[in-house]
Amino acid sequence: MKAERASNCWFFDHEDENTFTCHRIAEQLFSTTTKYQEVSFIRCPGLGEVLVLDNKLQSAESDEYIYHEALVHPAVLAHPSPQTVLILGGGEGATLREVLKHSTVKKATMVDIDGELVEFCRKHLQKWHQGSFDDPRSEIIVRDAWDYFRDATNKFDVVIADISDPIEEGPALNIYTREFYEMVYNILTDAGIFVTQAVEVYYREEEYHSRIHKTVSSVFPVTESYCDYIPSYSAVWGFVIGSKRHSTGALEANELRRRINKRIDGELRYYDGETHLRIFSLPLMVRQNIEKQQTIATLAKPIKVFSA
Amino acid sequence: MKAERASNCWFFDHEDENTFTCHRIAEQLFSTTTKYQEVSFIRCPGLGEVLVLDNKLQSAESDEYIYHEALVHPAVLAHPSPQTVLILGGGEGATLREVLKHSTVKKATMVDIDGELVEFCRKHLQKWHQGSFDDPRSEIIVRDAWDYFRDATNKFDVVIADISDPIEEGPALNIYTREFYEMVYNILTDAGIFVTQAVEVYYREEEYHSRIHKTVSSVFPVTESYCDYIPSYSAVWGFVIGSKRHSTGALEANELRRRINKRIDGELRYYDGETHLRIFSLPLMVRQNIEKQQTIATLAKPIKVFSA
Amino acid sequence: MKAERASNCWFFDHEDENTFTCHRIAEQLFSTTTKYQEVSFIRCPGLGEVLVLDNKLQSAESDEYIYHEALVHPAVLAHPSPQTVLILGGGEGATLREVLKHSTVKKATMVDIDGELVEFCRKHLQKWHQGSFDDPRSEIIVRDAWDYFRDATNKFDVVIADISDPIEEGPALNIYTREFYEMVYNILTDAGIFVTQAVEVYYREEEYHSRIHKTVSSVFPVTESYCDYIPSYSAVWGFVIGSKRHSTGALEANELRRRINKRIDGELRYYDGETHLRIFSLPLMVRQNIEKQQTIATLAKPIKVFSA
Amino acid sequence: MKAERASNCWFFDHEDENTFTCHRIAEQLFSTTTKYQEVSFIRCPGLGEVLVLDNKLQSAESDEYIYHEALVHPAVLAHPSPQTVLILGGGEGATLREVLKHSTVKKATMVDIDGELVEFCRKHLQKWHQGSFDDPRSEIIVRDAWDYFRDATNKFDVVIADISDPIEEGPALNIYTREFYEMVYNILTDAGIFVTQAVEVYYREEEYHSRIHKTVSSVFPVTESYCDYIPSYSAVWGFVIGSKRHSTGALEANELRRRINKRIDGELRYYDGETHLRIFSLPLMVRQNIEKQQTIATLAKPIKVFSA
Repeated sequence: MKAERASNCWFFDHEDENTFTCHRIAEQLFSTTTKYQEVSFIRCPGLGEVLVLDNKLQSAESDEYIYHEALVHPAVLAHPSPQTVLILGGGEGATLREVLKHSTVKKATMVDIDGELVEFCRKHLQKWHQGSFDDPRSEIIVRDAWDYFRDATNKFDVVIADISDPIEEGPALNIYTREFYEMVYNILTDAGIFVTQAVEVYYREEEYHSRIHKTVSSVFPVTESYCDYIPSYSAVWGFVIGSKRHSTGALEANELRRRINKRIDGELRYYDGETHLRIFSLPLMVRQNIEKQQTIATLAKPIKVFSA
Repeated sequence: MKAERASNCWFFDHEDENTFTCHRIAEQLFSTTTKYQEVSFIRCPGLGEVLVLDNKLQSAESDEYIYHEALVHPAVLAHPSPQTVLILGGGEGATLREVLKHSTVKKATMVDIDGELVEFCRKHLQKWHQGSFDDPRSEIIVRDAWDYFRDATNKFDVVIADISDPIEEGPALNIYTREFYEMVYNILTDAGIFVTQAVEVYYREEEYHSRIHKTVSSVFPVTESYCDYIPSYSAVWGFVIGSKRHSTGALEANELRRRINKRIDGELRYYDGETHLRIFSLPLMVRQNIEKQQTIATLAKPIKVFSA
Repeated sequence: MKAERASNCWFFDHEDENTFTCHRIAEQLFSTTTKYQEVSFIRCPGLGEVLVLDNKLQSAESDEYIYHEALVHPAVLAHPSPQTVLILGGGEGATLREVLKHSTVKKATMVDIDGELVEFCRKHLQKWHQGSFDDPRSEIIVRDAWDYFRDATNKFDVVIADISDPIEEGPALNIYTREFYEMVYNILTDAGIFVTQAVEVYYREEEYHSRIHKTVSSVFPVTESYCDYIPSYSAVWGFVIGSKRHSTGALEANELRRRINKRIDGELRYYDGETHLRIFSLPLMVRQNIEKQQTIATLAKPIKVFSA
Repeated sequence: MKAERASNCWFFDHEDENTFTCHRIAEQLFSTTTKYQEVSFIRCPGLGEVLVLDNKLQSAESDEYIYHEALVHPAVLAHPSPQTVLILGGGEGATLREVLKHSTVKKATMVDIDGELVEFCRKHLQKWHQGSFDDPRSEIIVRDAWDYFRDATNKFDVVIADISDPIEEGPALNIYTREFYEMVYNILTDAGIFVTQAVEVYYREEEYHSRIHKTVSSVFPVTESYCDYIPSYSAVWGFVIGSKRHSTGALEANELRRRINKRIDGELRYYDGETHLRIFSLPLMVRQNIEKQQTIATLAKPIKVFSA
């Protein structure tokens, strides 16, 4: 019996026009093209199963827990009593999974424009959603977020934007704008908190992260950036919180520990009090980049990140 | 509706440790691991469907006709009356397909060691075999060629070796040897002709091609090399004919044309009299390489080509 | 003392948007940017020294002799008495080197638009020109070929176009056109012969090769294609001859041998009578591609090949 | 005048056998092979000048300040009165540069086994050392660290190991061992502090980082890991501190700020109190990896990281 040979098929994940990471592909599992994006689901040694949208590595089995725990828990814990949560995007169902770990949450509404992607994930990404789509507290709505906002009558304690990067011709180009954040502000309750993924914080994207920060701060009284490394992205990923009242980063350590113990059902692998301290403490030059940023993104002049 | 984006998955086809060709993968279709080799079936823009064995591009829809016409027709046409043909290897069924175009052929026997590969090809490579496995003149035997030779009682007018390259730990390492060619000689009828694929003729493999030539010539009275470019291999591919009596290259042009017209049913896309002239006329340095070769490959000291 | 480690720097040579070949770089030797093109001179294991123009592998030490012998000798030998030869392009000096091997040649004029490239080659590509720039029969003129044609008063027995591929924004875009070939026709003597490199004959470029053939044939009474494999190009390279009177391909074998022996000083490594037979015998589908081509390239609608 | 074309030469930086990052090369500047390693100095868009040792990206102009500030300042500041500092390795001179920013330091001794590398850096890496080799407080010794330790008579307040990764056949294989750390312990003064770069903390290297931590803790009473992202490494880089008395991570924020202001001359771009908080707060699973590690590296069983 012959020894197994490593595959010679590779996925190229482009950072920018001068840098790309090559991941060996063990197996191409499924792929489809929806109305909005190209969807590919592969398996890579080291990364496990990997979701690729429009040629960009979106989520890897090996470390999606880092991204999703980082996205969800700080903002939800910072709210004194989060009962209703709105997720924008989040097709994999993993953001929903993390939200549902909060025992205070009575209703989690997920609005994704791409129903075909949601169906694809429901079918193939069981490791991500782990059945969260079928939780009685979940409501899945296939709709454009702008339309949803226009017609919505109820409000939310927390809004989480788990939407792909703003690329040319991509579905997310108008999401990272002041106009969008104003819609978010209006749908939040009085002590409401908003969090959005906010692209890479280093390299050329440092410009984009700080611009998202600046844009959120043009709408919300309290704005905070935090970030940590996502191995499969080969990048330190940024998040921006816009809050009407409470600071997330300033949550006192003992109080944070108390809330984690009291409110979260199920295990966290990445996030706890010390991790919180890490990710809300930014390196000096990252803080400086944010401070000197003057440009606000608008529908007329949105952020466009590199796409391959 | 968004514009289609080219995939960012690539197949690396290694020539040697310093050179490899990257082919964009449109789709990974099927893959399996047999007892003998890793089999992958992909689709590439420009190449169409592609069979990959042990990480080496084996056959591409776009140009397999060049390889298979070049392998089969010169030797079969050079025989005055080929009625029985033995194919060694040839799992895709395309060599069989070309053999069956010869109206003189009454029986085509194919012996392949890898029954799982033959089944895989029968199922997925319809474009290659085009039903030739089911032709009443075809007989498919899953067996090691050495065992087959040992027990065989009948003889053949033409033997065609369509076997993958001799790589370390691969199933073909002992095939490109004098001992094997002696077995072939013995199973041929009096005017019998043998042809084998004989690796790339340039670069480091020039050494291997000429060694196959030298080895065949240590067994057969008439030995001839010919070669032509296979685009998907990024290489000029060599073939070696060992014949008991007739020369293939020296076939007179009018006689060759007559035989093609009279004996071949079905269309040829690549091979005709002018192509014959081309491929049997070798560039000067290729002839020199063959002439100066002194080493014969044996079981004790077989040829080993680069594998990735 | 530690073992030597192979470099991990690679040159990507793009065939088209779906295929590229990676060559390991042993050393980057020299590079410059002229008014017309980016010039890079590297060393690769297996290829030796390599000239790269505008990111395209132009000439490799290991096999430049194939290209240059194929380009020069058939046309020059087909002329009964070639005394004056005009080379268009040919900055490396190797085309000049081959032309000067013909003892009949009294004057070899080389016209290249890119004087900086010629200087670069004179300095660094000794292995190519081997001093031919300094031969008393050589004349080097740095000028646009169009301007040269307009003002020229003398005529030539043979014109050789050794000019890079017609790429968007490249210096050669208007060279592969009927208008240019008309200028060439007029500068030729009565039995004059013109030969041009004519891109790859397979893949998507088959369309371009046949269009060059068709375009030449719209100007010259005798037009012939020939081709052979250039390993470092990973391609079968085409050439087109336009002749006022004599056929090159139809040169009788004994006469060809006689002319080679009589007229050529110095050794040929690739080209001889049998090689001639090979390269002027085209594979069936290549002939068919040429025959069915109807489009003539003009200044208004030139050929543009892929560039990376 | 033609538009500039991006180079198509790429440097492949291998993480492991399944992952590599491709950086476009703008220019290969200088290269050499010393007795111990292959040295290459290139320029990449985005990264600036880049030092590559044995095919591994070692240091990039764009972000070397992150690595070197992180390596040097925490340990030196944690010492109440660091007067003598020993640097092991550090050929680029940037670790020395950072050490010399501390006004308390009276003598900085650098011991590097590879004198040819030190000379190469002194000549070509001015952006790194910025003249620090010529500072009157600097002493450069070309010697194997083991030999130096054996013969040394003086002691040091801080020892900094800035040595390349332990790769098979590399010069650093025996450095990341208990035996080596015992030598370090003995050369430290009573309140002495040792810091070493300690490879990547994620992926397969998480195993190596935690093993270095465990090994240091088998020798030193106080052991602390910290880490942060180095963009050009596409990795979160780890560091381990072994201290005889003082904790570095537990330095009180106001005291740290006071020491930075008082002791450091020159600007820091990356490190300050908030950055300190970030890098000494480890993500949950990184802490767990360190806690569960039981294996100590020894000369008999050293750590070997992947090399390409």
